[in-house]
Amino acid sequence: MTTIKTVAEYCGVSVSTVSRALNDHPDVSNEAKAKVKAAAKKLHYVPNSSARDLVRTKSDSIGVVVRGADNTFFVPIVGAIGESCERAGYDMVLRQASARADEIKEGAELVNSKRLKGLVLLGGRYDYAREDAVSIGVPFVCCSFTNQFGNLEKDAYSSVSIDDRASAYEATKSLIAKGHQKIAVLLDSAHDHSISELRYMGYCQALEDSGLPVDQELVCETVDFTMEAAYEATAELLSRRPDVTAVFAVADSMAIAAMKALYEFGRKVPEDCSVIAIDGIESSLYTTPTLTTLSQPQETLGEEAVRILVDVLEGRAQGSHIRLNTTLRPGGTVGMAR
Amino acid sequence: MTTIKTVAEYCGVSVSTVSRALNDHPDVSNEAKAKVKAAAKKLHYVPNSSARDLVRTKSDSIGVVVRGADNTFFVPIVGAIGESCERAGYDMVLRQASARADEIKEGAELVNSKRLKGLVLLGGRYDYAREDAVSIGVPFVCCSFTNQFGNLEKDAYSSVSIDDRASAYEATKSLIAKGHQKIAVLLDSAHDHSISELRYMGYCQALEDSGLPVDQELVCETVDFTMEAAYEATAELLSRRPDVTAVFAVADSMAIAAMKALYEFGRKVPEDCSVIAIDGIESSLYTTPTLTTLSQPQETLGEEAVRILVDVLEGRAQGSHIRLNTTLRPGGTVGMAR
Repeated sequence: MTTIKTVAEYCGVSVSTVSRALNDHPDVSNEAKAKVKAAAKKLHYVPNSSARDLVRTKSDSIGVVVRGADNTFFVPIVGAIGESCERAGYDMVLRQASARADEIKEGAELVNSKRLKGLVLLGGRYDYAREDAVSIGVPFVCCSFTNQFGNLEKDAYSSVSIDDRASAYEATKSLIAKGHQKIAVLLDSAHDHSISELRYMGYCQALEDSGLPVDQELVCETVDFTMEAAYEATAELLSRRPDVTAVFAVADSMAIAAMKALYEFGRKVPEDCSVIAIDGIESSLYTTPTLTTLSQPQETLGEEAVRILVDVLEGRAQGSHIRLNTTLRPGGTVGMAR
Repeated sequence: MTTIKTVAEYCGVSVSTVSRALNDHPDVSNEAKAKVKAAAKKLHYVPNSSARDLVRTKSDSIGVVVRGADNTFFVPIVGAIGESCERAGYDMVLRQASARADEIKEGAELVNSKRLKGLVLLGGRYDYAREDAVSIGVPFVCCSFTNQFGNLEKDAYSSVSIDDRASAYEATKSLIAKGHQKIAVLLDSAHDHSISELRYMGYCQALEDSGLPVDQELVCETVDFTMEAAYEATAELLSRRPDVTAVFAVADSMAIAAMKALYEFGRKVPEDCSVIAIDGIESSLYTTPTLTTLSQPQETLGEEAVRILVDVLEGRAQGSHIRLNTTLRPGGTVGMAR
């Protein structure tokens, strides 16, 4: 069997040069890369992805930056990423960051200090610039989001995401179909260049298509994704606009906190106010009533992220972009408007 | 400054031999270890814990096996472990396992394949044998549990945990103080040699000290820790024993699922049935009513686990055992017995 050592001897270079050349490391000249790759092809060298190949193991780590690490939505995704890395023969190095962190900076640091092969960004902005990809320096995949606002080229990265705008549109439309007209939206920020902004766009589009105005008093920005902020924002909404009859929350966890505030203001769900969200986390199955939500395929998001990243790392594909569907998980929180 | 290279040259051995000798790697003879350690001491060599020391970085990883990875209780603990590893200059390699996994086997595999320096077991059995420590082969710390049933010596490992038995005793006593006599316990298994068994012991002790019998029909074993199983077990309990007036759940997530079942059986909490638990996760602040629970110091559990493990790894201490206190987080789910 051709080993990495065979290739190194054939080319008259070190094993680590072969490894770096095959992985397109910037330290290796293009000439050397071409030579090594040609030799690897000629000798039918197949990189060994098992843990036995120590040369490879030492640096065969995939980093995962979780932006918003306290968001339980990410728990099954991290689990699926971990299992998929394991199966593909890669270590997973995890960094948990706050929902306000600069995930590009965190990721670049992690790649640098841990000499990672590739990176999964779990949660992040949608406005990456070309410089962002350069600073990361290794193949990366956006998991649960993608680039919509920035100037980053499609082939410079990969992504697995849902169609945020379409899902928010669907959620809002389902409230309008029940006769709701005063529909609040509960989100991080309408201009975060992230999921909130896209889901806000879907919300606005649904209102517009139904001839309803976007009323800024019904737009509840929480500034962060915590349940505490969502609770406070809902309490303020109910004081400001007691005429609200429905809430669309951009995340299940925020919807759960909103339901608590509604209850404490003496509003029954769904009789006095309907609630719908996007995510489909486990605990929203156990609210009373059960939360109606558009469920994301969490495990598949994680599995597909690793699959397409490993395909890039092992030279089987260029970056690719996968769009997964959400599924309506009917609960008991949506009713007819009063 | 004395580098690892200086020590290697002084001893006439390779850099990796010095590294392995200082880290007590089994591949290095005791003689060589003694020689290297004496030289390191004489030359005032201080191991560099930053990422710049590549020799060290390659293998300076701490593994974390999360047993019951879908339990959101672990999320802030994993976050704290990650941050603490980062600060101490170690990589974290995470493996997520099911609540029924053999965490010793998973941990030993991880140590072996990733050449880890140390291991954090987050969640696990309380009956470790001497052979278990041998199979892990590196220093390890039990986080959120400790050894209570096995024959593993105290100095063979470290632990950070709460007093499960005392916390369960306190929770049950607080229900008895409100006049409850028919108190169900919702747990994984009464004989799991893990937290359920210890918390069950505290529950039994509280009943006994108050002259109340342990009624096996009120012991609800879910076989796993999922919310779904807790929901089903509570539904069965209510059919079997409609006279129950209070439920002590060994975990917040199980209590949340139990509240859903109570609601669907037309039982108001706390008017018709009280609920108390142990854990203090974020989402149980947003149930209606807010769950009354004994809150664990989650971040501190993670931080202390890494601190005592790193102390062992860097030769500053032997294994130690830390017991942290739970705090009553009053909610609205405990009321007077009917």
